[in-house]
Amino acid sequence: MKIALLATLLPILVSAAVPGQTNEPPPDARPASSNVPGAQFPKIDSARRAYFRIVAPQAKSVSVGLPGGRRMTRDADGIWTVATDPLAPGFHYYSITVDGATVSDPASESYFGTGRMSSAIEVPSPGEDFYSPKDVPHGDIRVHYYFAGTTGKIRRCFVYTPPGYDTNLAARYPVLYLQHGMGEDARGWPDQGRAGFILDNLIAEGKATPMLVVMDDGGITPGAMRGPGRDGRPMFWDQFTPVLIQDIIPMIDSTYRTIPDREHRAMAGLSLGGTQTLEISQAHLDKFAYIGSFSAPFGYPQVPGGFNGLLGDPAAFARQVKVLFVSYGAAGDLAARGSQAFHQALEKAGIKHVFYESPGTAHEWLTWRRSLYQFAPLLFQTSQDRNL
Amino acid sequence: MKIALLATLLPILVSAAVPGQTNEPPPDARPASSNVPGAQFPKIDSARRAYFRIVAPQAKSVSVGLPGGRRMTRDADGIWTVATDPLAPGFHYYSITVDGATVSDPASESYFGTGRMSSAIEVPSPGEDFYSPKDVPHGDIRVHYYFAGTTGKIRRCFVYTPPGYDTNLAARYPVLYLQHGMGEDARGWPDQGRAGFILDNLIAEGKATPMLVVMDDGGITPGAMRGPGRDGRPMFWDQFTPVLIQDIIPMIDSTYRTIPDREHRAMAGLSLGGTQTLEISQAHLDKFAYIGSFSAPFGYPQVPGGFNGLLGDPAAFARQVKVLFVSYGAAGDLAARGSQAFHQALEKAGIKHVFYESPGTAHEWLTWRRSLYQFAPLLFQTSQDRNL
Repeated sequence: MKIALLATLLPILVSAAVPGQTNEPPPDARPASSNVPGAQFPKIDSARRAYFRIVAPQAKSVSVGLPGGRRMTRDADGIWTVATDPLAPGFHYYSITVDGATVSDPASESYFGTGRMSSAIEVPSPGEDFYSPKDVPHGDIRVHYYFAGTTGKIRRCFVYTPPGYDTNLAARYPVLYLQHGMGEDARGWPDQGRAGFILDNLIAEGKATPMLVVMDDGGITPGAMRGPGRDGRPMFWDQFTPVLIQDIIPMIDSTYRTIPDREHRAMAGLSLGGTQTLEISQAHLDKFAYIGSFSAPFGYPQVPGGFNGLLGDPAAFARQVKVLFVSYGAAGDLAARGSQAFHQALEKAGIKHVFYESPGTAHEWLTWRRSLYQFAPLLFQTSQDRNL
Repeated sequence: MKIALLATLLPILVSAAVPGQTNEPPPDARPASSNVPGAQFPKIDSARRAYFRIVAPQAKSVSVGLPGGRRMTRDADGIWTVATDPLAPGFHYYSITVDGATVSDPASESYFGTGRMSSAIEVPSPGEDFYSPKDVPHGDIRVHYYFAGTTGKIRRCFVYTPPGYDTNLAARYPVLYLQHGMGEDARGWPDQGRAGFILDNLIAEGKATPMLVVMDDGGITPGAMRGPGRDGRPMFWDQFTPVLIQDIIPMIDSTYRTIPDREHRAMAGLSLGGTQTLEISQAHLDKFAYIGSFSAPFGYPQVPGGFNGLLGDPAAFARQVKVLFVSYGAAGDLAARGSQAFHQALEKAGIKHVFYESPGTAHEWLTWRRSLYQFAPLLFQTSQDRNL
């Protein structure tokens, strides 16, 4: 399970260089926005080809591990280069493999993903800037440490507080609990996902109700998948549930100015964080009225048995669950079959929900950034909440 | 200048393995606390030896770039290992070099330092836990984006708000502006420096007045050193000064609940950030009453000419500058000569100041963590401020 899923999640495609193709970046190529300050490579040109460059004088073989990536070629000075095919827009992890050692590129910002500090390249998406920093009021993303009684340890979470939180001191806010996927941690949404910029931009346009977003560590490591599970499935959510219910939610409600009831609390997650969200929210419907599953590979509730039987009663379900949101990437997402089947079953049963297919993207961060962009405006939209 | 300084700042020592020494970690070895979740290597044993492990089947040569590091040796399966000599306590950057390619270790958390996303190992310091997370009230470190008129760009800073900031809504706080060194950026103090934990612990013990700490990007890149400078010195501070004075300070004072006067504002920095602090604070004594220089390699004010001539008048200086703090590492810090000479000149001139030598450390983060731990309790200690 573990290896098969990792292999699906992390396709690394290494093909031979195209003969005669130059690896020299054209004049329109620019350093990737995901590079560290000052780093000239990798570059991306206007056709979305990426140009990588690594100094490795004594190496016999160097390659870039990236969908559409390639073996690099060596020049006389020991500098290895490659020009990729046009890359899909969005955020892509990559690694560098030097003579069999798979390592990170010190010229790239690094992100905890695929269970390691991974390099990544941000490929611009033409006409799509909802996740870019703009000259609008910005909320803060706070790094918050707290002691968790259920684990006996100090934990870290990230909390987005919206613009105005520090000046509108009488205001209280609803909360979205937003979970990462396997091999990632609480940093996924603030860093890879750009959750702060997405909310800043939506709030500035009046499309989303100002809310807090809590991004904590769901513990979805390969190790957590090893235990015996109900129905033979892994039980990684069983370890996170008490932390979320007994520690995180009470801590957030006592530390920040929240509206501490289920009508003002949402949970969503990507990939296995989506699976986790479906499991936890069903078991704790007293805590959450809004639910989002982005590219969950499995764990979809039975229709009609799921949600404590509510999926057999469309009216009762709609009273309890204000929004059920299901999304996936339309171009090769491993979650396609599960999410589509769930959507069709809900349709057939007459259960109100929102289904979103991200065009042209797979099981990747652009799918999830777009999912958050679609999901957040649906939250806390009662007439009372809109005036927050 | 640039290369000589880099060579001094970043000593990389690669020696041959000791014959007969095993690279197998002993039973008391534990994964370094600076590893990513789940990574077993590098490990550190109770004698502070570090054990590195890299899979590189086709490589001819692999080494760890770390003071006291070594060439790694290959086993029959293509796994390379090394056991280091006992390492100095504290935080040390390292890199991995595989057949001439100097890259980052995906098993280590990575830090923007030495101009790249660098791996690092945290070596425990016996009996020294002032920078460790403890079960005390924690402030938040906020990632804050803002538009800077002087540059026309959106910038990022990190703002530590102390415990109680979100509940004592009538309270206003003094502010420490805390700068990083060359090849680092605004992340240096929150990540490498553990500024949040240091303040949390000092405040919990009643040793420091609750304050905000603003950590922004001083722009100290090798590129910034190239311009022509006054007296032949580089002018990197000339680019940061307008940002700090015209953008950052007004933005902080309008966004957070500060006490916006010089008596409640401090500036400090490490290495070239210390040089920057000395230059900027002298030129803007109307803004800062507390000044800290940690391991500044040069840029010390002339005694008696410096500080607008105040260094010729001890009483006038003491009225204006509540604390002048100068520190360096006592074991091989490149800032030793400059800081000692400045201290001696101040002593001779009868200028009140605080001089701190970090025992057993060099030009490195443990020197600067300790410097912050010594400096912060000296700030804002008038009887009125102590009641904040």
